[in-house]
Amino acid sequence: MIALIGDVIDAERILRNHAVLVEGNTISAVVPAEKVREFGPDEVYGEDGFFVIPGLINAHTHVAMARFRGLGEDMPTEEWLEKIIWPMEREWTASEIREWARIGIIEALMNGSTTINDHYFFADEIAKEAERVGIRAFIGQTVIDLVDFPHAEPEEGFKFFRRWRGKSELITPTLAPHATNTVSLRLMMEITELSEEENARIHIHLAQSRAEVKEVKSRYGLKPVEYLKRAGALNDRLLGVHGVYLTDEEIRMLASAGSTLVHCPTSNVKLEGRTINLSGVLQTGVKVALGNDSPNPVGIMDMFLEMRTSALFANLLEGKAHSIPARKIFEIATVGGARALGIRAGLVREGYLADLLLIDARKPWFGPKADPYSLLVYSARGSDVAMTMVNGKIVWKKEGR
Amino acid sequence: MIALIGDVIDAERILRNHAVLVEGNTISAVVPAEKVREFGPDEVYGEDGFFVIPGLINAHTHVAMARFRGLGEDMPTEEWLEKIIWPMEREWTASEIREWARIGIIEALMNGSTTINDHYFFADEIAKEAERVGIRAFIGQTVIDLVDFPHAEPEEGFKFFRRWRGKSELITPTLAPHATNTVSLRLMMEITELSEEENARIHIHLAQSRAEVKEVKSRYGLKPVEYLKRAGALNDRLLGVHGVYLTDEEIRMLASAGSTLVHCPTSNVKLEGRTINLSGVLQTGVKVALGNDSPNPVGIMDMFLEMRTSALFANLLEGKAHSIPARKIFEIATVGGARALGIRAGLVREGYLADLLLIDARKPWFGPKADPYSLLVYSARGSDVAMTMVNGKIVWKKEGR
Repeated sequence: MIALIGDVIDAERILRNHAVLVEGNTISAVVPAEKVREFGPDEVYGEDGFFVIPGLINAHTHVAMARFRGLGEDMPTEEWLEKIIWPMEREWTASEIREWARIGIIEALMNGSTTINDHYFFADEIAKEAERVGIRAFIGQTVIDLVDFPHAEPEEGFKFFRRWRGKSELITPTLAPHATNTVSLRLMMEITELSEEENARIHIHLAQSRAEVKEVKSRYGLKPVEYLKRAGALNDRLLGVHGVYLTDEEIRMLASAGSTLVHCPTSNVKLEGRTINLSGVLQTGVKVALGNDSPNPVGIMDMFLEMRTSALFANLLEGKAHSIPARKIFEIATVGGARALGIRAGLVREGYLADLLLIDARKPWFGPKADPYSLLVYSARGSDVAMTMVNGKIVWKKEGR
Repeated sequence: MIALIGDVIDAERILRNHAVLVEGNTISAVVPAEKVREFGPDEVYGEDGFFVIPGLINAHTHVAMARFRGLGEDMPTEEWLEKIIWPMEREWTASEIREWARIGIIEALMNGSTTINDHYFFADEIAKEAERVGIRAFIGQTVIDLVDFPHAEPEEGFKFFRRWRGKSELITPTLAPHATNTVSLRLMMEITELSEEENARIHIHLAQSRAEVKEVKSRYGLKPVEYLKRAGALNDRLLGVHGVYLTDEEIRMLASAGSTLVHCPTSNVKLEGRTINLSGVLQTGVKVALGNDSPNPVGIMDMFLEMRTSALFANLLEGKAHSIPARKIFEIATVGGARALGIRAGLVREGYLADLLLIDARKPWFGPKADPYSLLVYSARGSDVAMTMVNGKIVWKKEGR
């Protein structure tokens, strides 16, 4: 049994100086810190002054794109894709993917993501590396049929899904059509069918660029969400990512269907100079999760920065202070992601998966500890994570502790 | 002699694997790393894989407000001021100010600010603490004459200025009228006169809130920058902070006068849901420096986050990707601040003040090192600072190095 000690903070409650007890891959109890000895834990980490929080759920990643960090910086997006990203992606080999996926995964774990939802080529390599390093990972093999792109054959996506289905405690395969403009309605329907049979998540880029919206319109006369509806994919297994160019009506359609909109604030604003108005979006009741996208263009796999950035963008887009409470932002990054992916995580409760972070809140920027949610959203950075636990195992720990 | 080794990066050049040699408080040479032994340094820090960069210049701070971090979070700004900040500020004692200023200063140093430009009550205490801890500090005693506020008597401001003038290598006193709506034109003229006689910087909050603009208008029939001009204060010794509600014409007036606009992106958007369009502002040619304001409302004294945030806000306000090159943002946070404050710092050059940071760029999120400016603005956080040097002295260093 492992015990983690500190203020236990999740989106629903704050418990001053408690111990979280972990047995196997599960939280077995949350008790006042002074009672921890009664349980005879084998290992104890943290102390009064730390925070114990649920691991952050990074609901959209391309971890292997760590390879591209900083490349093509300051180029217009189309030029960046055409001159830098696409040519390099055509050249990927399996071993390179695995090497760079490892870097992205370690970076994510060090900075507090306990779950990633990855969408990329050579998904087998990424899944193997995620399992080896020990991050919880939903992984989909990117598929494309309307554009000639290597490593993205639809059949490979289905094979990957079948190969990993039910195989690993940590890895859950998803179905990962690239985007509404690069996948035909016919393939999308096939994907939807498998998703229904297997109760599998569909993870898709959605209304990320003007070009996407224009192409779906000209090909099918549909808006991106209408396209998903036509394919039968609009349900609670769908995670649509970005949504930068969604209409209000489309967001309401996602809300009614119980689908999740994955918000990637830094990526959107870096690439498009635009993002969703999160404050307005939340008012539709649509489920929202938070994603970090990839080290290129974002710079770093740090979900604390995404929380901070999403809160600030919401203010700027609403033109008002404090447009979303810090607690709500934290909820999106934890409970929001867990619900979208269908895992019993995101809260620090008995019976929940032991996907936990120990935060060293003894640093100056946590004083005087007036409001833990504000500290987690505005003061903390991934570098304040002292230990990352996934599925009951310590997968990263700062030296000297 | 101390040597710092790594890629030497300032806003004007990038030197792969060089050594920065420091003698006394000054950079004595920058040479290829392999030549460092010829100089026989007493101490060597860093190695290939680190970055050596100029210290970041935090051109607007209230370090003692670390006391208020997270207090009144999610309140409307007026309520936050009236219920939380002002009542607590009325109660400040000298010893409390000193204690919390120490925390704010250490936090700033740990996260890469080598110079602060502070504006607060009990400036004596802050100056003493800044000198003791070893940060370069421009400090002004906040003065107010139009509102009854304790610890802000004009005479105290002048006394503080005279007491610290020329007294310390690290501390430079400034004149710190609170804002254009809380200081009379008469007092502002008196301040301007002293500023001229003593070649002293004037540091003032400028067009931070709608209320400020409205009050100056109703009292004098002037816009905030017109008020400064009327007082004779519009010159290259002026640092006007925030500028959230400046008109384009006022920004052009600042530009013509050679005054500096200090941009505090996080603070503005947290408090007002609004900030300047930095991209547009830069096109007027106005001098710009970057500030972090205070731990309340911002959350943390981390100028790396302010660089990142200012770049992203500029995109969002312009509605386009990469609206300001990362190199330019880095220039504002280094050269921009140094120029505003009139110090020979902000570049890593022979003869410049040895205000330097050693960045541990061996961490995963600096790979593959394609674009150092992008890494510094989008990937780095204050927590990547391995060592902070101010005036040739190591004032903070991570354990184990």
